[in-house]
Amino acid sequence: MLLVQKFGGTSVGTIERISNVARRVAEAKSKGNDVVVVASAMAGETNRLIDLAKSCVTEPDPRELDVLISTGEQVSTALLAMKLTSMGYKARSLQNHQVRLVTDSTFTKAHIKRIDAQKLRNVLKDGSIAIVAGFQGIDEQGDITTLGRGGSDTTAVAIAAALKPYVKSGLVCEIYTDVDGVYTADPNIVPQAKKLKRITFEEMFELASSGAKVLQTRSVLFGMKFDIPIHVRSSFNDSEGTMVVSETNDMESVVVTGISQDKNEAKITVLHVSDRPGIAHSIFAPLAEAEIIVDMIIQSASSQGFTDMSFTVPRGDYKRAMQILQELVNQKKATYVTGDEKIAKVSVVGVGMRTHSGVAAKMFKALADAKINIQMISTSEIKVSVVVNESDMKKAVEVLHKEFELGIER
Amino acid sequence: MLLVQKFGGTSVGTIERISNVARRVAEAKSKGNDVVVVASAMAGETNRLIDLAKSCVTEPDPRELDVLISTGEQVSTALLAMKLTSMGYKARSLQNHQVRLVTDSTFTKAHIKRIDAQKLRNVLKDGSIAIVAGFQGIDEQGDITTLGRGGSDTTAVAIAAALKPYVKSGLVCEIYTDVDGVYTADPNIVPQAKKLKRITFEEMFELASSGAKVLQTRSVLFGMKFDIPIHVRSSFNDSEGTMVVSETNDMESVVVTGISQDKNEAKITVLHVSDRPGIAHSIFAPLAEAEIIVDMIIQSASSQGFTDMSFTVPRGDYKRAMQILQELVNQKKATYVTGDEKIAKVSVVGVGMRTHSGVAAKMFKALADAKINIQMISTSEIKVSVVVNESDMKKAVEVLHKEFELGIER
Repeated sequence: MLLVQKFGGTSVGTIERISNVARRVAEAKSKGNDVVVVASAMAGETNRLIDLAKSCVTEPDPRELDVLISTGEQVSTALLAMKLTSMGYKARSLQNHQVRLVTDSTFTKAHIKRIDAQKLRNVLKDGSIAIVAGFQGIDEQGDITTLGRGGSDTTAVAIAAALKPYVKSGLVCEIYTDVDGVYTADPNIVPQAKKLKRITFEEMFELASSGAKVLQTRSVLFGMKFDIPIHVRSSFNDSEGTMVVSETNDMESVVVTGISQDKNEAKITVLHVSDRPGIAHSIFAPLAEAEIIVDMIIQSASSQGFTDMSFTVPRGDYKRAMQILQELVNQKKATYVTGDEKIAKVSVVGVGMRTHSGVAAKMFKALADAKINIQMISTSEIKVSVVVNESDMKKAVEVLHKEFELGIER
Repeated sequence: MLLVQKFGGTSVGTIERISNVARRVAEAKSKGNDVVVVASAMAGETNRLIDLAKSCVTEPDPRELDVLISTGEQVSTALLAMKLTSMGYKARSLQNHQVRLVTDSTFTKAHIKRIDAQKLRNVLKDGSIAIVAGFQGIDEQGDITTLGRGGSDTTAVAIAAALKPYVKSGLVCEIYTDVDGVYTADPNIVPQAKKLKRITFEEMFELASSGAKVLQTRSVLFGMKFDIPIHVRSSFNDSEGTMVVSETNDMESVVVTGISQDKNEAKITVLHVSDRPGIAHSIFAPLAEAEIIVDMIIQSASSQGFTDMSFTVPRGDYKRAMQILQELVNQKKATYVTGDEKIAKVSVVGVGMRTHSGVAAKMFKALADAKINIQMISTSEIKVSVVVNESDMKKAVEVLHKEFELGIER
């Protein structure tokens, strides 16, 4: 069996924790598995390096920023490899230029193009544990790149995908983190939330993109594309976590799998804009130019040739977006721009929605019964999201968790 | 003109100092030079990383130690490159795997085998400043290696040597450090010491290997082998430093160029060993096995088939050496082992000695006149070294500096 084990920043945050990780890796190796470890930077290290850069220049060159912050994972791989070596195991740290994890040249948020499996295979054939620096790669020119925050998850799944053609006896990508697995809802909000034994890639993707922080969305897409089973589990205990897998027939019997919430958005409404072709473009083009990502969009029914337009943006971009849109008012393209930072998005997710109708209706009724006002709605094939007041968020999650009977043992 | 500028750990020890270095590099570039910068780790960083390794395991695997500590220079190159970029200059940091500075696989003290000049030439042709991580390389397998303490000097001279065949209009390797240049003696001991305008590679090598810390001996040997003029100068002011160059005819007119001292040795005497073939081997073989380097060796005249043997070892190895040699006494191969940690070696160096006799005699007389007892003597073609009491060291250097008229302006 090939195990690709990824350990996050908190899992390698101290020397003691690195020793713990080493014991866990050693155990997996001792059971006869081939083991590739993907290590993140020690918790806080990436931020320390970014602060160092910013104390040097106000806007660090992205190429050089990647050279700088990639040292964080390099340190972790070396420490982990020397720990395992001292325990009598064969272990080798491998950096981006050795694994040849090749990305495009979009520094600070590069995309993986390919991985040279040969180097990793040689290390594994030698009986060694391969310890790969997560989060980073090299571009075609050999320059160091990084994959953006949380990129180590993606590194792990991509490495599993690259090795998959050569694996004869099973393959799992284990993502070790500081939570036990994927829950039906955030246990901090719903104490009755249950840990899921299995979840599909699609559901995981929707949960991750609507606020659940347990896995990076990109790594889920990689897992889905190459069909790499991902085991999300805790690095602090031995309990089984959650398997993220391809959909099987029996999975559709569960209509709703989980609920997520996201307080990281803000709502903006542009009032009384003339309802003619091109108006959406005049609103959203300047936001796109400012690299502000717009999420949910609602256009109200037109009245006398005018309409209102509401949408959400990341909360960190709210002030900037408001300034940009004020220009529309100045140009007399709208009468007024208003906004609300205190909103939350609550989403219910489940592949069963594809074959079960009425989920949205049931959701709206439950929220109405709880006197929670719905401000915006958006749906996908396996997700329904609503925007509510931030103060209603906790109650909304609780109500929906109960309504869809997610706390009941199956 | 091609300038290879090496900056040591104190020169890049803080963000402010990195800005200073950037200004200096920018100035050299603005004058129309091609500039390659070799950067050391920020002062203290290498020790911090070694401490981190030692907090993880008692004896870090050398391969992984190199992976760990090489991050120190990587950080410096990135900060320096982003500073220069923010100042409007084209600058690119380059790591070992990009420069392809290939070494053997002796981790923590690797030797340079070759450098791929092509990558550096491309960066320079592009009009960019190349900022290379000092102290490190990769071996034939692509594993990260380091060159040992002070290895950045060697990196700089080796890069200059690799680029030399392509340079049309002059080449200097500038070693920026925290002193002004090479002095006739340590100015902390002899305030009248004069900064040398020029010194030969041979003299520099002898001074460096007998206690002067201004340049690494290996970098001097590289400079000598490839005839790379080395300019030793301060990174904190603009004054001219000392040029280390090949010998020219006029240089032999000066008999003694400089005086160095070294408190880093200890003396051991093995008393009353039987004077027969193989006895030296039985003393020095166990020391060599323990990787203790023996420097000066004196064997006293044999008397009734017995002799005494004195030699010096690095002070840090003194206790261990004494323990090892005690074995000889236990085995009845010697009657007694005694030692002295409080010694110092004082050396006078000059290529003029080749053609001028009487330097040693003059030296011994001057020391005798000052009532300084000489415990051991060793000589090379261009150097005379004596071992004295540590308490006599300062006086010995002063007396010899005066005797050879080194404080007089020429």
